[in-house]
Amino acid sequence: MIKMSVYYSADGGSTFDHDYYRTRHMPLLQERLGDACLRYEIDKGLAGREAGSAPEFVAACHVYAPDLATFQEALAPHRAEIAADVANYTDIAPIVQISEVVEGQGKSGCAL
Amino acid sequence: MIKMSVYYSADGGSTFDHDYYRTRHMPLLQERLGDACLRYEIDKGLAGREAGSAPEFVAACHVYAPDLATFQEALAPHRAEIAADVANYTDIAPIVQISEVVEGQGKSGCAL
Repeated sequence: MIKMSVYYSADGGSTFDHDYYRTRHMPLLQERLGDACLRYEIDKGLAGREAGSAPEFVAACHVYAPDLATFQEALAPHRAEIAADVANYTDIAPIVQISEVVEGQGKSGCAL
Repeated sequence: MIKMSVYYSADGGSTFDHDYYRTRHMPLLQERLGDACLRYEIDKGLAGREAGSAPEFVAACHVYAPDLATFQEALAPHRAEIAADVANYTDIAPIVQISEVVEGQGKSGCAL
């Protein structure tokens, strides 16, 4: 399993509309990706290492897919539409990362 | 639900032992945190936005906890031990971030 993570640096811009991101942008991305999106997760930055310190990232998302080829094929036809929607919630240029999920385990018994 | 994410920048150092991290360090952290660790996930960086590009982070982990106070109380007595183990797998100074998980959903029906 792989995931695409998108990070919005706290010092990278001045605005981030968490509500739009959660209720409009990410559901749009999920809908366009279809079965290539196994699930997704949204982070809202709270702090750095110490409580009360500034977080490195104001927000992030993680989109889980079975493999890289499946994800890229599903995203390709919709890249322009997804990119055009970014201006609706932030002026931060995001960092995009593709990772392999090498371990994901816990007491819930959920493989994801 | 909150999570602590730890990021190891690809340009932050010269070594990262993924095997040690997966089989020794993260199980140690999970064991010390006990019930405060709902689950954890390990990322291995593959690429940036484009396939074949360098990833921003060579590795990352995400530790999920019910709330910040529970997590901090569980970690406090073990911080020194956990920190001392880092030199066994990397020379990269990590970025630590605390985030609120504002959305985590998918087709598996798993809340995590």
